[in-house]
Amino acid sequence: MANKKITKRDEDFAKWYTDIVSAAHLASYSNVKGCIILEPYGYLIWERMQKVLDEMFKKSGHQNIAMPMLIPESLMKKESELINGFAPEVAWVTEGGTNKLEERMCIRPTSETLFSDYYSNIVKSYRDLPIKYNQWCTVMRWEKETRPFLRGREFWWQEGHTVHETKEEAEEETRFIMEEVYKKFFYDYLAIPSITGLKTEKEKFAGAEYTLTNEALMYNGVSLQAGTSHYFGQKFSKAYDIKFLNRENKWDYVYQTSWGTTSRMIGAVIMVHSDDDGLVLPPKIAPLEVVIVPIGREKDIQDLALKYQEALASKDISVMIDNSEKSPGFKFSEAEVKGIPIRIEIGQRDLENGEVTIVRRDTKEKMQIKKDADIASFVQETMDKMQKDLLEKALIRRDKMTYTAKTLDEVKKIMDNEPGFIKADWCGDPECELKMKEIKGLKSRCILENEKPITGKCVVCNKEAKHLVVWGIQY
Amino acid sequence: MANKKITKRDEDFAKWYTDIVSAAHLASYSNVKGCIILEPYGYLIWERMQKVLDEMFKKSGHQNIAMPMLIPESLMKKESELINGFAPEVAWVTEGGTNKLEERMCIRPTSETLFSDYYSNIVKSYRDLPIKYNQWCTVMRWEKETRPFLRGREFWWQEGHTVHETKEEAEEETRFIMEEVYKKFFYDYLAIPSITGLKTEKEKFAGAEYTLTNEALMYNGVSLQAGTSHYFGQKFSKAYDIKFLNRENKWDYVYQTSWGTTSRMIGAVIMVHSDDDGLVLPPKIAPLEVVIVPIGREKDIQDLALKYQEALASKDISVMIDNSEKSPGFKFSEAEVKGIPIRIEIGQRDLENGEVTIVRRDTKEKMQIKKDADIASFVQETMDKMQKDLLEKALIRRDKMTYTAKTLDEVKKIMDNEPGFIKADWCGDPECELKMKEIKGLKSRCILENEKPITGKCVVCNKEAKHLVVWGIQY
Repeated sequence: MANKKITKRDEDFAKWYTDIVSAAHLASYSNVKGCIILEPYGYLIWERMQKVLDEMFKKSGHQNIAMPMLIPESLMKKESELINGFAPEVAWVTEGGTNKLEERMCIRPTSETLFSDYYSNIVKSYRDLPIKYNQWCTVMRWEKETRPFLRGREFWWQEGHTVHETKEEAEEETRFIMEEVYKKFFYDYLAIPSITGLKTEKEKFAGAEYTLTNEALMYNGVSLQAGTSHYFGQKFSKAYDIKFLNRENKWDYVYQTSWGTTSRMIGAVIMVHSDDDGLVLPPKIAPLEVVIVPIGREKDIQDLALKYQEALASKDISVMIDNSEKSPGFKFSEAEVKGIPIRIEIGQRDLENGEVTIVRRDTKEKMQIKKDADIASFVQETMDKMQKDLLEKALIRRDKMTYTAKTLDEVKKIMDNEPGFIKADWCGDPECELKMKEIKGLKSRCILENEKPITGKCVVCNKEAKHLVVWGIQY
Repeated sequence: MANKKITKRDEDFAKWYTDIVSAAHLASYSNVKGCIILEPYGYLIWERMQKVLDEMFKKSGHQNIAMPMLIPESLMKKESELINGFAPEVAWVTEGGTNKLEERMCIRPTSETLFSDYYSNIVKSYRDLPIKYNQWCTVMRWEKETRPFLRGREFWWQEGHTVHETKEEAEEETRFIMEEVYKKFFYDYLAIPSITGLKTEKEKFAGAEYTLTNEALMYNGVSLQAGTSHYFGQKFSKAYDIKFLNRENKWDYVYQTSWGTTSRMIGAVIMVHSDDDGLVLPPKIAPLEVVIVPIGREKDIQDLALKYQEALASKDISVMIDNSEKSPGFKFSEAEVKGIPIRIEIGQRDLENGEVTIVRRDTKEKMQIKKDADIASFVQETMDKMQKDLLEKALIRRDKMTYTAKTLDEVKKIMDNEPGFIKADWCGDPECELKMKEIKGLKSRCILENEKPITGKCVVCNKEAKHLVVWGIQY
C-alpha cells in the first residue's frame, strides 16, 4: 500500500524526492529565498551523521574550532583563484547597524581564507606542525536554482583545514580523509557504494593543486558529488604568508589541505535507498531504530511493549512505543515514511499464539518470532543484515548502471537509454570535456587513478588517452 | 608559583581575564573586527556545555531544528518592538553575487521572526500544540565595544522557541526553563550560584511581555546576565498570524516563549572560579578531567601511568598521559593554565614509598595516596568534592558581596567601597532606575519575586515600593 502523500518514484523522480523531504519532515521551504529549514527529523539525521564523522575526525587527531562567519573582501582577495571561483556567488554584508561599512564582507562560502590568516599568526616552527582543525557550521552560496539538501544558498557542513611540514604529509592527509573517512562513512554508515578519484583541472576546487572527490550514483542514474578533499600545496600559504622555521632552521611555507562533506548526504540517502512508501534509512544512521506499535491497550500487550523497550534500550538500541491515538495502519505508514528500520507489532491474535511480528523497513519482510525470544539480539541481527543488504543492493544497481564506452556514439546510445556512470578514455584536453558536455550535460565525475585507459584513445578526439574517466550528469 | 603569562587578578582584573583567555587557548582575536575565533580548548568546553544542556532540553521534550541565518527586512519588521530593539545593531546583506538585492536581509540577531513565520505555516489546531523547538547556532549583533565571550559581534548560543495552547502552559515553560534548566545548570554544572528573577520593563527583551533572567556575580563584583527566558503572550502570534483552532473549534492565537544561553557562560566560569595560575574548571564541564604526568621514562613509572589511564577511562573519566618533551614543571603549569581538575604525578621518589601524588587544581592541595589504591574512586570522590567546594566558595563570596541598602547614601557608600549585588526597594518608576544609573552605572539586575521590600519605600524617591530589586553594574 503506497503512501498517498508520496508521488511514485518511477512516475516523477523529482517530485518523489521532494515529497519524501516534506512527508518525513526532513526540511521545509522557508520564506528566505533559497534557504531551507532543517526540521527536527532531518536535524536528528544530521546529528547522527555529525556524531559519527566527528568521532572519526577526533580519533585521527583532528580538533574542532570555530571561525567567524564573515570574511572581509581584502582577506578574500589574497588568493586570486579562490575569489574568482566564489565571487559570483557570495552574499555581501555592506551595512552594520545604521552605518555603511568601510569594507564590505562576505558570508563565508568556505573558510580557507580565514584559516590561512589564522595559521599565519600561530605557526612559527615545524614543532607547531601539523595542525589539523575542523569546523562544523553553515556556509552561504548565492545559488540561483535550489533543491532541498542538494543545492541551497545555506547548507550545513564540516570543513577541515590542515597545515603540514611536508608535501608528503599533506598529500597523505588529503588521501586519508577521502579513503579512510569519507569513503568508509559512505560504505559503512550510509550504505552507499561511492567511487572516489581525482577531479580534472576544469572541475577541481578553485585554488587547489588537485581535488579528490567522492561520487555517488543516485537511483535515477544521476551522479552526486558528496565529499571532496583538496591538496593546496603551498598556494595558500604563499598568498597568506604561512611561514615556519623548518628542521634546517630555514623559513618555509606550510603544505595545506582542506576537505568537506555536507547536509547533501541526506539527499543522497533519500535518492539511493528510499522507495514509494518514504524514507529508507540505513540503521547505522537512523535516529530512531525501532518503533513498537501495541495494537490495543490490553495489559499483556502494554506490558510486553514496555519489556521490549527496556530490553532494547539496555543494548543501546533507540526505541519508542507509539501509543498515540492513531489507527495501527496510520502508525505503520508513518513509521515507513520516516524510514524507521524495525517495526514491532504486538497484537492480541499474535499474542495468543505466543508471537509478535517484526517488520523490516527496506524489504517489508514480516517475521513472526516467539514473544519470549531475545528481542534485542533479534533486532540487532536484523538491522545488521539490513545495513549489509542495503549496501549490496545499491552496489548491484551501481554496477548495472556503470557502462563503458569506446566511441562517442556509444556514449550517446547509453545516454539515450538511461544515464549512469560512463567509463571512457580521455586525452586530458578540456576541449574534449566540453564536447562531452554537449551530450545531455555529461561532465567528468573523476579520473580513476588506479585503472588504465580501455582503448588508449580519447573517446572524443581519438588522440592518445591519458586517463580513464567516469562521466555522468550531476545534481 | 604564579604563571608569568597571566597578569595577577588583583592587579588588573580585565587584563587577567584576557590573559587567561589567550593562555588557555580558549579564543583569539580574528582579523574580522569584533569577532573571535573559538579555539580548540574553548570549543571543547562549549561542546561540554552544549551536551549537558542539549540533554536537558531533549529530556523535557524539546527538539532541535535549524532556521536560515538571514531574515528579510519585511519579515523582521512585522513585530515593531523587536525591530526597534535590534535594528541599530544588525548586519545587513544588500548584495548577492553580483546583484543588489531587491530587499535587504539581516544576519539573525535572534530568530523570533523566523520561528514565528514558520509556526504560522505549521500550526493548525490545538492538536499540534505545544511545539517546543531549540536551535544551536551563532547570531550576530553589531556591537561597538567587544570583549572575548562577554560581548562580541558573533557569538555561540542556543535559542528555544515554543508555542502553546494556553497562557498558563506558556508561562510554565518560561519558568521551567529558567528554574529547572538554566539555574540548575549554573548550580550543578558551572558551580555558579546565580540569582534568578524578573527583568524590569526597561530591561526586558524587546517584544516580550516579561523576561526572567539568570544573573551571576563575578569575582570583581560585576554582574553578568547569563541566560534569559521570555514570555511573549500573544504579541508575536498576533503580529505573525500564528492561529489555531482551539478545543471549542474557534480560532485563537498561540502563547509563545523564547529563551537562550550563550558562549558568555565560558566568560562566567573564568571570572567566578579562576585564579592567578589560570583557568579553574568545575570537573563536570572540564573536557579533560585528569592529566597524568610521569616524571621519567622508567618502566615502572610508565606502566603505572598506563594502568591508571585504563582504570580511569573504564569509569568514563577523561584522562591523558603527558609524555611530551617538556619539563615536569612546565607540564604542571600548563595543566594549571588549562584548569584540568586533577593532576596525577608519578615520580621515582614517591614510588619508592609506594605512593603517588594527586593534586587538586582549585586548592592546589597535594595528596599522597598508595599506588595500589582504587585510583578511579579516589579521583571521582576528589572531583565531586571539588565541584561542591567551588559552588560553596562562590556562594560565600556572592553572599559576602550582596548588600542591602535603604537609602541612596548607603548605595553610594557600598559602591565607593566595591561593587556587588545591592538589594534595595523600588517603586516601579523607570525614572528612579535612571537615577540609580548615575551611581557608577548601576542597573536593575532583577526583581526578586519571592522577597518582600525591605523598608517599603523606594530607595530613590521614597514613594511606596512595589518590589525588592537587585541592582548591580554589568558586563
